[in-house]
Amino acid sequence: MTDAAMTVGLLHPGEMGAAVGATLVAGGARVRWASEGRGPETRARAEEIGLEEARSLEGVVRSARVILSVVPPHAAAEVARAVGALGFTGLYVDANAVSPETARHIGRSVEQAGARFVDGGIIGPATRQPGAARLYLSGPGAAQVAPLFSAGPVSAVVLDGPVGAASALKMAFAGWNKGMQALLASIRALAIAEGVDAALLSEWALSMPDVPARSERAVRDNARKAWRFVGEMEEIARAFAQAGLPTGFHEAAAEVYRRLAAWKDGAPPGVEEAAAALLAPSTADRPLRGSRFSGRAAPKT
Amino acid sequence: MTDAAMTVGLLHPGEMGAAVGATLVAGGARVRWASEGRGPETRARAEEIGLEEARSLEGVVRSARVILSVVPPHAAAEVARAVGALGFTGLYVDANAVSPETARHIGRSVEQAGARFVDGGIIGPATRQPGAARLYLSGPGAAQVAPLFSAGPVSAVVLDGPVGAASALKMAFAGWNKGMQALLASIRALAIAEGVDAALLSEWALSMPDVPARSERAVRDNARKAWRFVGEMEEIARAFAQAGLPTGFHEAAAEVYRRLAAWKDGAPPGVEEAAAALLAPSTADRPLRGSRFSGRAAPKT
Repeated sequence: MTDAAMTVGLLHPGEMGAAVGATLVAGGARVRWASEGRGPETRARAEEIGLEEARSLEGVVRSARVILSVVPPHAAAEVARAVGALGFTGLYVDANAVSPETARHIGRSVEQAGARFVDGGIIGPATRQPGAARLYLSGPGAAQVAPLFSAGPVSAVVLDGPVGAASALKMAFAGWNKGMQALLASIRALAIAEGVDAALLSEWALSMPDVPARSERAVRDNARKAWRFVGEMEEIARAFAQAGLPTGFHEAAAEVYRRLAAWKDGAPPGVEEAAAALLAPSTADRPLRGSRFSGRAAPKT
Repeated sequence: MTDAAMTVGLLHPGEMGAAVGATLVAGGARVRWASEGRGPETRARAEEIGLEEARSLEGVVRSARVILSVVPPHAAAEVARAVGALGFTGLYVDANAVSPETARHIGRSVEQAGARFVDGGIIGPATRQPGAARLYLSGPGAAQVAPLFSAGPVSAVVLDGPVGAASALKMAFAGWNKGMQALLASIRALAIAEGVDAALLSEWALSMPDVPARSERAVRDNARKAWRFVGEMEEIARAFAQAGLPTGFHEAAAEVYRRLAAWKDGAPPGVEEAAAALLAPSTADRPLRGSRFSGRAAPKT
């Protein structure tokens, strides 16, 4: 599968997709991407790492034996459906942050269209540093996909589990990492709202000395990607529901990231600025799910 | 206020109350407790640290100029009401893990009965190690209470804020500490349910090396106290609602601790055993609040 003739389709070369694409190219694959409807940043990344442009999705589907989907979670099922509708019969890898249930649903949809399905989940930052990120793979075709990643920087790890296992691992990892960061940002917002933020930082300095800096990072590192985390938190809530666990952690985390979504791709806010957004959601915001409380404090100004 | 004649009432000498009581005794106060309805462990602790037994709550109220309430959060308002109903006119300190709103409600109830009110919140473990725990105090009478704690081991910190500030600080601190531990225990349960726990521990060992041990502690250190954390998580959800923040984190945390409540005062479970309880709530368990999902996976056996 790693011979020079292998053509892989990559949907899409966003930040994480570009790290995956660079790995595939380094391993000797021809990597095609669909440029239709994509922005200039995506094109610049694609050209920089040596991807071949196919204008349309159909152009990718016709030439690729393997297609990797690396998209925001809310788009994962639709991308799979579109690939299936174009008659793809190769190996389809969903590498997205979706629940095991959603992964199985996507798998059935591409298999019904005549393709084979491999479940995937990427853990680690979207950099091109060797060893920074891992693509976990599961399901019968997983061992065929892994050699495409032999050159790095993204490495592949085949899990001994069915379709759903790679997605479950991603849900568990991100459920802690992004869930706890949403909680931590909310805690700072509560302390600021109540006028006890300085006292909280002093107490943490005594008893949990790493937490003040972690709470700053929870805001600074996540605000520009928050728009993309909303769907991921909803998928994690779905995975919790499927396992019989309470869904509130990640429904709340989705709400936190929704309120931070305005910083998409911009300079990150400070903790106080982020707190103001968390405490004063827009009036267009949908009512809180999961609240036992009939009322809600008036937004602060 | 620290002269030998000062009598302080302590409701009740549980584990944390005993650390507070030992501090008051060390500072020279006479400390009375109400033995009516309390168990043998409480009596043993009270005798060990030199508290004076008053059989009834009335006996405490009649002799004390200051009363400290150190009880599980769900009992805080009722204890204050009972003290007020007995005509207490001294200084009443609620040191419990309640929301600022609940603290203000308790304050109004004791003030209407003729007493003065100080808001408090205890942060730190219920040990008698010097410096381990701090009683934060806020409101007009706070500076009068602090000298009672001059001898330690529990120290007092007066916040520059109104009634509600000390409770808010406690909510923020416990909202992170106990909220994130409930999340972490749930994440292990999800990984176990999906058969990816070993893979998660391997990934954490690479990318977040302190998390495996933290997840073990989240179960081991909390299970025997979980019954008491349910009300505390509900108070934190209330504080979040009051500030306009999403309540789901701590509604879910309350549910997690509710499912662990069976280990009250017993030997703690391992992670797998705790996961089984988290994944298979009893059928008497109330339906999940806050779930957007109409169905819920059948409890695993």
